Amino acid sequence: MAITLGPNQYGKAEVRLVTVDRQGPVHHLKDLTVSTSLRGHLERTHLTGDNSDVVATDTQKNTVYAFAKDGVGEIEDFALRLARHFTGSFEHITGARILISEHGWNRIEVDGRPHDHAFTRASDEQRTTAVTVQDGTAWVVSGLTGLVVLKSTGSEFHGFPRDRYTTLAETTDRILATAVTARWRYRGADPSGIDWSKSFADIRRVLVETFATKHSLSLQQTLYAMGEAVLEARPEVAEIRLSLPNKHHFLVDLAPFGLSNDNEVFYAADRPYGLIEGTVLRDDEDGDDAGLAWHTLPAF
Amino acid sequence: MAITLGPNQYGKAEVRLVTVDRQGPVHHLKDLTVSTSLRGHLERTHLTGDNSDVVATDTQKNTVYAFAKDGVGEIEDFALRLARHFTGSFEHITGARILISEHGWNRIEVDGRPHDHAFTRASDEQRTTAVTVQDGTAWVVSGLTGLVVLKSTGSEFHGFPRDRYTTLAETTDRILATAVTARWRYRGADPSGIDWSKSFADIRRVLVETFATKHSLSLQQTLYAMGEAVLEARPEVAEIRLSLPNKHHFLVDLAPFGLSNDNEVFYAADRPYGLIEGTVLRDDEDGDDAGLAWHTLPAF
Amino acid sequence: MAITLGPNQYGKAEVRLVTVDRQGPVHHLKDLTVSTSLRGHLERTHLTGDNSDVVATDTQKNTVYAFAKDGVGEIEDFALRLARHFTGSFEHITGARILISEHGWNRIEVDGRPHDHAFTRASDEQRTTAVTVQDGTAWVVSGLTGLVVLKSTGSEFHGFPRDRYTTLAETTDRILATAVTARWRYRGADPSGIDWSKSFADIRRVLVETFATKHSLSLQQTLYAMGEAVLEARPEVAEIRLSLPNKHHFLVDLAPFGLSNDNEVFYAADRPYGLIEGTVLRDDEDGDDAGLAWHTLPAF
Amino acid sequence: MAITLGPNQYGKAEVRLVTVDRQGPVHHLKDLTVSTSLRGHLERTHLTGDNSDVVATDTQKNTVYAFAKDGVGEIEDFALRLARHFTGSFEHITGARILISEHGWNRIEVDGRPHDHAFTRASDEQRTTAVTVQDGTAWVVSGLTGLVVLKSTGSEFHGFPRDRYTTLAETTDRILATAVTARWRYRGADPSGIDWSKSFADIRRVLVETFATKHSLSLQQTLYAMGEAVLEARPEVAEIRLSLPNKHHFLVDLAPFGLSNDNEVFYAADRPYGLIEGTVLRDDEDGDDAGLAWHTLPAF
Repeated sequence: MAITLGPNQYGKAEVRLVTVDRQGPVHHLKDLTVSTSLRGHLERTHLTGDNSDVVATDTQKNTVYAFAKDGVGEIEDFALRLARHFTGSFEHITGARILISEHGWNRIEVDGRPHDHAFTRASDEQRTTAVTVQDGTAWVVSGLTGLVVLKSTGSEFHGFPRDRYTTLAETTDRILATAVTARWRYRGADPSGIDWSKSFADIRRVLVETFATKHSLSLQQTLYAMGEAVLEARPEVAEIRLSLPNKHHFLVDLAPFGLSNDNEVFYAADRPYGLIEGTVLRDDEDGDDAGLAWHTLPAF
Repeated sequence: MAITLGPNQYGKAEVRLVTVDRQGPVHHLKDLTVSTSLRGHLERTHLTGDNSDVVATDTQKNTVYAFAKDGVGEIEDFALRLARHFTGSFEHITGARILISEHGWNRIEVDGRPHDHAFTRASDEQRTTAVTVQDGTAWVVSGLTGLVVLKSTGSEFHGFPRDRYTTLAETTDRILATAVTARWRYRGADPSGIDWSKSFADIRRVLVETFATKHSLSLQQTLYAMGEAVLEARPEVAEIRLSLPNKHHFLVDLAPFGLSNDNEVFYAADRPYGLIEGTVLRDDEDGDDAGLAWHTLPAF
Repeated sequence: MAITLGPNQYGKAEVRLVTVDRQGPVHHLKDLTVSTSLRGHLERTHLTGDNSDVVATDTQKNTVYAFAKDGVGEIEDFALRLARHFTGSFEHITGARILISEHGWNRIEVDGRPHDHAFTRASDEQRTTAVTVQDGTAWVVSGLTGLVVLKSTGSEFHGFPRDRYTTLAETTDRILATAVTARWRYRGADPSGIDWSKSFADIRRVLVETFATKHSLSLQQTLYAMGEAVLEARPEVAEIRLSLPNKHHFLVDLAPFGLSNDNEVFYAADRPYGLIEGTVLRDDEDGDDAGLAWHTLPAF
Repeated sequence: MAITLGPNQYGKAEVRLVTVDRQGPVHHLKDLTVSTSLRGHLERTHLTGDNSDVVATDTQKNTVYAFAKDGVGEIEDFALRLARHFTGSFEHITGARILISEHGWNRIEVDGRPHDHAFTRASDEQRTTAVTVQDGTAWVVSGLTGLVVLKSTGSEFHGFPRDRYTTLAETTDRILATAVTARWRYRGADPSGIDWSKSFADIRRVLVETFATKHSLSLQQTLYAMGEAVLEARPEVAEIRLSLPNKHHFLVDLAPFGLSNDNEVFYAADRPYGLIEGTVLRDDEDGDDAGLAWHTLPAF
């Protein structure tokens, strides 16, 4: 019964890169966290410690910084450049996955006018991409994380089964809050001609608007509606995966103090939390294949 | 050589409170983290375990929620209400310190109009207050934390002494970035008649604008300028303490790759970081006394 | 081009459970974090908000606590009990994944003897299990996370390819440090007759001893050796996945201060870090099938 | 009404330093996080940006590494060396505060014998010191943090006052758990002749043993007993400050499920938590003066 090496990858995680575009008095910032992973015929280093095929993770980091010199552009394009470089430059490196998070900055206003070169960090929300290249084919999964949303009404939860362990009361009015993590896969191998920035902005808008306006009977229903709205709005998206923690806001029982509580005073709980995860996709017949797009990414 | 009890306090930390003002179709959110600490003649519980004087921390938590029923208002007012309640209601409780952090939420826009009851969490920046009441006298120290700012030029650092351990190059152009924690003490005991909300908004504006516009020769100079500008703008502020981590952005050396780097590509470092802390205050003769305002708060 | 619901699951995440076995004066602690996820025919809630099939996540939490009353035992057994309960009790729930982390506690010694009921928390290392039941079949993937190890010699790294972006020096003596996350799958569906506790203890011992004694030419080689040693030692393990961040310890250049540094003084870096991930498995012909064992788990 | 600079300090925070003592085949590790702060006549940089007096924080970092070349020894001694160097080397630097945390490592056992150069990281508990030197005088405040302890019985809480906001039930048997942060000040200025290592080990032992064996009627009583025991055991300690979060373990109500719960099944809560803070000190007449020992340290 022989023992053998199975799937593997290696790279440099969380390279912190900030670039300043100084072509003119108005500066433009890019603030990225880049993780690179390479895949290929890597048996030698694993089995014998022969590193002839191991592009050092330090070299991967250097490459990220050197490529940034030419400008980063959209994170999908930057990731594709890096992935194609690594897979095209080393004989035994047949695949690469580049993961990028982009952190936003807002321009400081002074006397009502945006400043040329001073910024405040925006929220913890991040725009993300995960680009995979394998044997020359590329897949792009973009997304966002840390988008925290809350609605103070327009959410119900009832009609669920009751067994001997059920104590939850039914409700027709509750706070619904979540921190959206979304990943959507762009259709087809080697997606091209996509305006990544516009696509992202529109998907984000659709997610937020649907959360706000869709009357919710369950967080699952909200999840599906958010995904469906994205697919309806953006034909370039093949599927979307959403992970929605239910950030519980429990009504505080004020009765012992002789007070009513008409959905006014809440306790925001940390743990445990509900976690609703799901995929919304096109029921296609046209053979769109996810390939390795999701390989080693979180399933939701 | 007897052993004895020294200064002490106890309370409930990090009570998570969210309130919804539902007076009308347009909801208003408050999202607070409240910590209460009580002080007084507490020898009995420490020395013998007799809890006759110990207002349970669970009771303190309940009180926070019950008081929220009447509306929270500005965090300074809410903290004062709580502190005066505790010190006024229990014989051996002579002092209280209430610490509140307020987390911001923005209204979601749908079709260009702000939604009635759906929100996104703003940045991690928090508005804070630390109210102390002792023997009937109140002090208010308000502030903010997590305000991350960056300027991509307009910052120099040179002229520092060089010894055998100095390797840092002088620079006339660098990124300056920091995460501002500020605490300012309102003048006088029992401050009243202050528009807390307006005062906060104006101080925040002054801090950010000064950071943006003050040409910086050192982060210390920037710190002092920020504090001075606040004191000049707001007569109700007696002193301000600033803690400014220098979030280093190091220029990446691209020379080994045959590339120049004219302040374009940076590595954003985590640790270690410079930490600049200082106080700016009025050189008064009028006997303004900080009293216990800062007791047990971080010194900067 | 219809839109449809794809794979999904939902449950309660991070239920914090501590049990005390009080059968006798010597107490025994179990400290678990339990996450439950249910899968099945859940179209109704997603598409219409009809919750007839949605076992509330609150009910899932209650079930965890109620089942703990009978004693937790080994985490694998507790997870199997829970998973089989959920899939056996509700018509449309066909699958369940239970994830448990166990936090260790050590008994306090007083006068050289272990105390009956007082403990200190052990390291942040956690023993984990991920049990999946689908249509009556069970898979068990156990593991550990947060096991931080370091060797101060016995590690080399050289012979890697050099391109225009390579600046890393070769080394025949470096610190090697990592935080081990391991997950191993027990062979076969419905594994039984396994002494989970002994299996865990032995695997952990083998991982640590191999790290210590295997001379390392690359972290990949160390990873493979650790996995191989586990498979050799424990026939009940079908495959093991390891995720090993390379916690870089960089030699500080003391030359500017006129000092040598013979692998004595290091800077422990936070980010970026190398990340080496890989699978070691049996090259079997006997048709052992991982089934859904890894579904939605991190790939490494 | 002039504005002026008040108390201030600056330095390099969280320098991560790992040293390996390689004098012989058995290696010895030190793993420290060092923060330096300098104080003095620093008006010039604050008011004008003239940095003639500003020992760069980068230089401070370099100094830490360079001094480590000679061996670190006990953290108190290393901090004293650094503080005296900075205050003795620069005209306008009159004070320094050095804060060090030491992270523990255990030797890996192989075949029952401790390995020469392979280690596992111990718990997150850290040994700490805060050394202050001002105008030639030194104070030493040492401590520990992250020591998590729990007793599953031997703790009561009752007899507290009840008002309209009190709902907490009295109990004669509960879990008591806390994460100890302790800081103790060594008597006198320029403490010398102290075996820092032995003093630390003994204080830690006394803290843990007292927690275990002292029957608790309140966490305040436990705090005082722990502090008192340290002062009784160690004459070199002048005072001790303890900060003890009450890590609540709430009994789960299993009655709805038809089950009893005799202190067997608990929910370990995150927030809010009780927080008990206090000082135990000697009631001396001999004029021991804390001086600047605690300046800018957390009050508890």
